[in-house]
Amino acid sequence: MNYYVGIDFGGTGIKVGIINEDGEIQIKDSFVTDPQKSGEEIVKYIAECTQKVIKDSKLPEANILGVGIGSPGLLNPETGQLKVVVNVPNMNGIYITKQLSEILGKPAFLDNDVNTMSLGEFYYGAGKAYQHIIAMTLGTGVGGGIILNGELYRGASFTAGELGHMSISRDGKYCPCGNYGCLERYVGRDGIVERFMNPKNKGFETSIDKYLEDGEVTPKAISLAAADGDKLSIQVLRETGEILGFALATLVNALNPEAIIIGGGISNAGDLILGPASETMHRFAYAIPAKDVEIHKAELGNDAGLVGAASLVVANLT
Amino acid sequence: MNYYVGIDFGGTGIKVGIINEDGEIQIKDSFVTDPQKSGEEIVKYIAECTQKVIKDSKLPEANILGVGIGSPGLLNPETGQLKVVVNVPNMNGIYITKQLSEILGKPAFLDNDVNTMSLGEFYYGAGKAYQHIIAMTLGTGVGGGIILNGELYRGASFTAGELGHMSISRDGKYCPCGNYGCLERYVGRDGIVERFMNPKNKGFETSIDKYLEDGEVTPKAISLAAADGDKLSIQVLRETGEILGFALATLVNALNPEAIIIGGGISNAGDLILGPASETMHRFAYAIPAKDVEIHKAELGNDAGLVGAASLVVANLT
Repeated sequence: MNYYVGIDFGGTGIKVGIINEDGEIQIKDSFVTDPQKSGEEIVKYIAECTQKVIKDSKLPEANILGVGIGSPGLLNPETGQLKVVVNVPNMNGIYITKQLSEILGKPAFLDNDVNTMSLGEFYYGAGKAYQHIIAMTLGTGVGGGIILNGELYRGASFTAGELGHMSISRDGKYCPCGNYGCLERYVGRDGIVERFMNPKNKGFETSIDKYLEDGEVTPKAISLAAADGDKLSIQVLRETGEILGFALATLVNALNPEAIIIGGGISNAGDLILGPASETMHRFAYAIPAKDVEIHKAELGNDAGLVGAASLVVANLT
Repeated sequence: MNYYVGIDFGGTGIKVGIINEDGEIQIKDSFVTDPQKSGEEIVKYIAECTQKVIKDSKLPEANILGVGIGSPGLLNPETGQLKVVVNVPNMNGIYITKQLSEILGKPAFLDNDVNTMSLGEFYYGAGKAYQHIIAMTLGTGVGGGIILNGELYRGASFTAGELGHMSISRDGKYCPCGNYGCLERYVGRDGIVERFMNPKNKGFETSIDKYLEDGEVTPKAISLAAADGDKLSIQVLRETGEILGFALATLVNALNPEAIIIGGGISNAGDLILGPASETMHRFAYAIPAKDVEIHKAELGNDAGLVGAASLVVANLT
């Protein structure tokens, strides 16, 4: 049995884990990095954390084939260079794969966190049965990963998959990216909360207060209230699904994928969003590609980052 | 030097030609098929036409490596079966590549006409320098072909590239496909003419009458009038380009292509459409993928169908 190391680099926190060939996590641990340290020192620390996890795992060192790193921000997966790491600017410009590989004595691979999560679902999650997948993460932002012919499609400058910035309306909401009507503005966290708060502030009945943490309305609270039958919450999630499904129809027409996999915190609302999304996509997409595509909730949950990062090794070495 | 046969099957008319390795047409001819004949007879006739062109070309038979067929309608490029040929229903169900290949003694390949045109531009036209291309044809309908990593991307059911049915607005115009706001309704022939006729009917000044054939306003007449300085025509083409560019921004964000190639009759308006399209795309797409993509007019013109069909042989055999 071979093993793959995944490093989920999240800015100030990192998670390190090892999966086996079946994608099962053998060990995982998390660490905190100090963004004030130099980039060199941070990489050295990441290597030490990785060595600790490898040692703790007691797995045969020779069977651990490589290391995959998922990171937010701009980067170049071919050279392994981090370009813009928003929360840890000292890491900008660092050739992280080269340095980790030298210290650890194993090949190392880098990609952005949405791409690695997509790969994780492709190899070990909801995408196992397919060759053409569109993966979408719904959270504060909306990201995407595109796997075609069984391979991650990265595009000319490694930015492919910005599905949150597909515009669904020329006269839609302004988006900080500079466009109007971006999907993210409707099915990302703020869009969902806004669609809930407008009627709530007008006095529409809702039981949401029971589900609030710190008094703040969040997609999670809306999901909990909806699961408990709160009509306003159900309606807001249905609208979210319908808008998502409308955008998916465009993707289905353009890319004719076998599966669409929806992950990220907001996907935990499950069928309350994915049901209307699927219905709307089927209604608006062409019949043939619509018939041939399945919409699934992502399966890897909280481990998506780790398993996805480790999957980079699988994608590159196997 | 090797040669490739291209068959541009357009329903009742077919064109047959032979290109060399540089994509240069060595010979071409056109024929009329009788849609009342059986599918078997039509295929046999296509084979005879092809044999005639090969003979007339006086090229060394052994250097003619194969035959590519571009067809409109639904088909399966892997089995070579035509599924729905709208104008020639007798061809529905015919395994055209198998039959042609048996008669001609050469390998034969099939794909839809928009995909073959995209391949033609990729190998021999405006796409030669690139590996990731989105090709779009603007005419009565709006079609698309997607080439990624140097290969045609066909999707799970061979329908990828329906870019005319990307929706640009949830509350946009109804489209016969069942969706609302499809790009084709705005930048296809009818959308352009409608955008011209509304102000014309209100009495806006225009010199269009000078350019009409049979008294009918067409995109071609609008292009001619615009090239001659007609303000209303220029405005209509600019709006067309802006809507196109808005849709291209979504494609650039999603697929991060190196080039977008615009063909079809309406693309003959050239910079009057492509200028505003490029400007709008750059304004609304993310900076990095926008910077790295170029928009070109297709180069193969009237020979796009033939050269594209022949390119199928190149894609499959080389």
